Amino acid sequence: MADEVIVLDHEHSPPANRVRIALKEKGVAFVSKQEDLPNKKSSLLLEMNPVHKQIPVLIHNGKPVCESLIIVEYIDEVWNDKSPLLPTDPYERAHSKFWADYIDKKIYTSGRPVLTTKGETQAAAMKELISSLKILDAELGDKPYFGGKTFGITDIAFIPFYSRFYTLEKFGNLSMNEECPKLVAWGERCLQRESVSTTMRNQYETYDFMLEIRKKLGVE
Amino acid sequence: MADEVIVLDHEHSPPANRVRIALKEKGVAFVSKQEDLPNKKSSLLLEMNPVHKQIPVLIHNGKPVCESLIIVEYIDEVWNDKSPLLPTDPYERAHSKFWADYIDKKIYTSGRPVLTTKGETQAAAMKELISSLKILDAELGDKPYFGGKTFGITDIAFIPFYSRFYTLEKFGNLSMNEECPKLVAWGERCLQRESVSTTMRNQYETYDFMLEIRKKLGVE
Repeated sequence: MADEVIVLDHEHSPPANRVRIALKEKGVAFVSKQEDLPNKKSSLLLEMNPVHKQIPVLIHNGKPVCESLIIVEYIDEVWNDKSPLLPTDPYERAHSKFWADYIDKKIYTSGRPVLTTKGETQAAAMKELISSLKILDAELGDKPYFGGKTFGITDIAFIPFYSRFYTLEKFGNLSMNEECPKLVAWGERCLQRESVSTTMRNQYETYDFMLEIRKKLGVE
Repeated sequence: MADEVIVLDHEHSPPANRVRIALKEKGVAFVSKQEDLPNKKSSLLLEMNPVHKQIPVLIHNGKPVCESLIIVEYIDEVWNDKSPLLPTDPYERAHSKFWADYIDKKIYTSGRPVLTTKGETQAAAMKELISSLKILDAELGDKPYFGGKTFGITDIAFIPFYSRFYTLEKFGNLSMNEECPKLVAWGERCLQRESVSTTMRNQYETYDFMLEIRKKLGVE
């Protein structure tokens, strides 16, 4: 019997994008169920993730897996016959997980005020975010992907953020190519992959979406 | 050649306690190097964890691994001949990681204001923390450990918090045995393990330490 794979999803959600990219890398067919966020959470979402009530949720043969990086590791362990997303060596695994975790904590979480505030608060948040991105730029260095030659969990963790680079340029009046040239080249490289190009919205659509979000939040 | 295992450590740090407990469960000999926090971070710490500059760091044959839950998984993968800390089944693994992550986010991080604020702010934080603990109490249910019969990563993630239960009782004027009876019985069960009893400070010492921290923060 074929696997039944469902993603409780939202097209603009970076964590949900991670899950779709990982499934596509593995060649796993899935059904995406878009949630009408933030308006209404489906009863399926509340049933499958009663603790956090958040997308994404991967429902595999009826059983839910939550939290995007945990889902990516799950996908790597279940569909382990092709496209490894984590190294097998324990030290290299820990290194990949460290940077994926860094991206969650220092880019998405600490970076959120850049998108949701204005004035001096936003400027200070932008300064901190760019400084965190420069650390990531240095970690990438001259490698094609974060793990070396292979596209993996750290790339998957960060690539959804690449669609926000234009937004950062507009909000911060800066050039991402000047600030983090290696990340920009890496982002373009990742976009050559079908898993990524068919998943991510482009940077201009993402910018429009961010402006909408800011209006809803009453920031603009 | 024997493994050289060093922990950059602090006796009262819950994340550092996790690392020591995991190593003891595996029977791995290690050297604990106490950091003089928050006064001065050693040059070794700054060299081994230049990104976060935080303990714990596990230095295994000269190579650093950072972030406590990532370290516990690393320990489980390297010393895989005894005392498995994570299940082998991918779904069960994801389930264990989900709850360990929940403990980081909802107990330690969201729970911090209980220890660092007072008055109404503290009372509101306490209410939220107890509610998060009740979810954990329900997840444990009648199982001896979070993963079932085996002491594992979720237990390791949470057990250092057990030494704060008396502090919660004092700060919140409540009985943890009434609020979360299963967690209290579980905590006592874990303390039967040598790995735990030789690692954790008792609840009264922890309370005194918390009062000291509050004085230093100017809360008391």
